[in-house]
Amino acid sequence: MSLISVGSLAYDGIRTVAGEKPRILGGSLTHFSNAASLKSKPSLVGVVGEDFAPAEWDFLKSKSHSIEGVEVLSGEKTFFWKGYYTEDFDIAITEETQLNALAKFDPKVPESYKKTPYILFLANMVPELQSKAALQCPGSVLKVLDTMNFWIENNAPGLAQAFKDVDGIIVNEGEAELLTGQKNLIKAAEMLFQPHFKILILKKGSHGVMVFTRDYMISLPAYPVKEIVDPTGAGDSFAGAFFSYLDAESQGGLDQDTVKQAAAYATVVASFAVEDFGVNGINNVSPAQVQARLDDFRKIVSF
Amino acid sequence: MSLISVGSLAYDGIRTVAGEKPRILGGSLTHFSNAASLKSKPSLVGVVGEDFAPAEWDFLKSKSHSIEGVEVLSGEKTFFWKGYYTEDFDIAITEETQLNALAKFDPKVPESYKKTPYILFLANMVPELQSKAALQCPGSVLKVLDTMNFWIENNAPGLAQAFKDVDGIIVNEGEAELLTGQKNLIKAAEMLFQPHFKILILKKGSHGVMVFTRDYMISLPAYPVKEIVDPTGAGDSFAGAFFSYLDAESQGGLDQDTVKQAAAYATVVASFAVEDFGVNGINNVSPAQVQARLDDFRKIVSF
Repeated sequence: MSLISVGSLAYDGIRTVAGEKPRILGGSLTHFSNAASLKSKPSLVGVVGEDFAPAEWDFLKSKSHSIEGVEVLSGEKTFFWKGYYTEDFDIAITEETQLNALAKFDPKVPESYKKTPYILFLANMVPELQSKAALQCPGSVLKVLDTMNFWIENNAPGLAQAFKDVDGIIVNEGEAELLTGQKNLIKAAEMLFQPHFKILILKKGSHGVMVFTRDYMISLPAYPVKEIVDPTGAGDSFAGAFFSYLDAESQGGLDQDTVKQAAAYATVVASFAVEDFGVNGINNVSPAQVQARLDDFRKIVSF
Repeated sequence: MSLISVGSLAYDGIRTVAGEKPRILGGSLTHFSNAASLKSKPSLVGVVGEDFAPAEWDFLKSKSHSIEGVEVLSGEKTFFWKGYYTEDFDIAITEETQLNALAKFDPKVPESYKKTPYILFLANMVPELQSKAALQCPGSVLKVLDTMNFWIENNAPGLAQAFKDVDGIIVNEGEAELLTGQKNLIKAAEMLFQPHFKILILKKGSHGVMVFTRDYMISLPAYPVKEIVDPTGAGDSFAGAFFSYLDAESQGGLDQDTVKQAAAYATVVASFAVEDFGVNGINNVSPAQVQARLDDFRKIVSF
C-alpha cells in the first residue's frame, strides 16, 4: 500500500497573537506529508518556483516516499500566502496572495506512484485540477478531496463534478453549512453524503471531528490544547495523519474500529501541529510523544 | 445515598420550528427530576402557586423521592416563561416572564432530606438563594450550582459568593466566556476552577461536554440528534442524569472512570430530552432505549 497526495507547496507569512513568521515553508502538501510521514511517507504531486530553497527540498524529501511528481516551473516563484489570525484563532485573514507557480499547476501523477495499491488525497485546489488528478488514478483504493469556501462560492459546478470523481470528501463545519444551508451537522452530512461516497469527514476545529460512512458514524472531541500558536495546516495535518493511518494499518479498509483509531490518532497529531509555527509542531515531535498523548486522549474520551 | 435538588417549577410557553406549546410543565427542578428519576429519584425543594395542577403534582411525585420541600404560596401563580427558539436552536428568545411565586422563593431544605449522605444540586436561580440553600446543607457529599448569563452580568458579587459556598459549578460555553473573557475553553476552565472546587462541568450544547476535576479532565461529543424539537431543559436533564448516576453508582465519588460513565450516560439522556416538547422526550423513554443509545454512543466515541 502507498499514499499519494496532490496539493500546494508554499511560502507563508503568518502573524498570530503568539508571534510572526514573515516567510516559512507552508502549503497543504507540506503539512499533509509532514504529518503522514510519522506513519507512512506519501508520494507527492505539486509545483514550486525556482526560489524553492534547498532546505525545503531536503524537508520534503525527508517527509515523502517520492517527490518525482513535484514540478519546478522556471521563471516562476513559489506560491506565497500572507495572513493573520484573530485572537481566538477562529478566522484567518488573508493580506496577500501571490499564486505564482500555482497558477500554472497542472498535476501529473507519475506512473511510478501507482505500482502498488494506493490511497489518493487531493488537497484543496481548483476543483477541475482535482478532477483531473482523480481521473489519472482510476486504480485508487480510496480517493478523497478537500476544498474551501472560495470554490463553494465561486465554482459550484466544478466542485460538483469533482465530488463525482472521488469517493469521499473532507470539509469543515462552515463549508458543510455553506454547501447545504443546514446548521444541523448530522443533517448536513446526510445531504452531503453522495451514493457513491465511501467516507465523509467533517472537521469541527476545537470541537473535534465527525466521520461518516455508509454504515456508521464516528464523533470525537478535539484533543484539548491550551496554547495555540499557529493553526495553519491543522486540517491538512489531520488528513495526512488520518490517511497514513489507513494506509499503514488497514490497507485503506474502512471498518469502524480502524477508522475510529485513525480519527483519534489524527486528532492527536493535529493537536501538535497547532502548538508551533508552520511545520515545527509536528516536525519536533517523537513517536513516543504522540503515543503518550494518544493514551491521554483515550483516558479523556473513551468510556 | 440520596440526591437533593433546589430549583424552579414553571409553566412554559414554547415555540420552535417543530411546533408550539402554549402552557406545559417546565422549570429546572422538573427537568432535573425527570431525568434523574431514571436512576435515582431526587428530593425536591421549590415553589409553586395555587394554579399548579393535580396532573403536575402527580408528575412531580412520580419523579421524586420526596416533595416535602415544595412550597405552595397562597394567592400566587406559578412562575411562567414564554419564549421561542431561532431556527438553529442556538438562542432562546424570551417573550414574557411572570416570576409570580418564584419572586418569593425562600428555599428550605427539609431535615428529612438530610438523614442519609446526599449530593446537592442547586439549579439556576438568584445566587443569594443558592448560597442560602448550600449553607443549609453543610453535610453534603458534593454540592454543585448551575447559573446563567443574567446573574453573571447583573449580580457578579452574589455569584462570586455562591461559588465559594459550593464545591462545583456547571456552566455552558457562553457563560464560561462571559465569566473569564477567555474563548479557549481549556484556559477558561482553568481560570474558573477554584481551589476548593471538586468539579467543573462545561456544557457545549451540540458540541458535547467537558468535565474538569483537580486530577483529570473528560471531553465527550454530543450524541448526534438529527431532529431537535425543543431544547428547553436539556442542561437540567443532563445535570439530573449526571448526578443521579453519581448518587446511584459511586456514592458521590469522582474517580475518572465513574465520572466519564456518568457524563456519557447524561449525554445520552439529554439527547432524548430535546427530541420532544417539555418533559415528554425523557418521560416516554424506556431504560432499554437509554441503554441501546448508550451502547451506540460508545461505538461512535470510544476507541
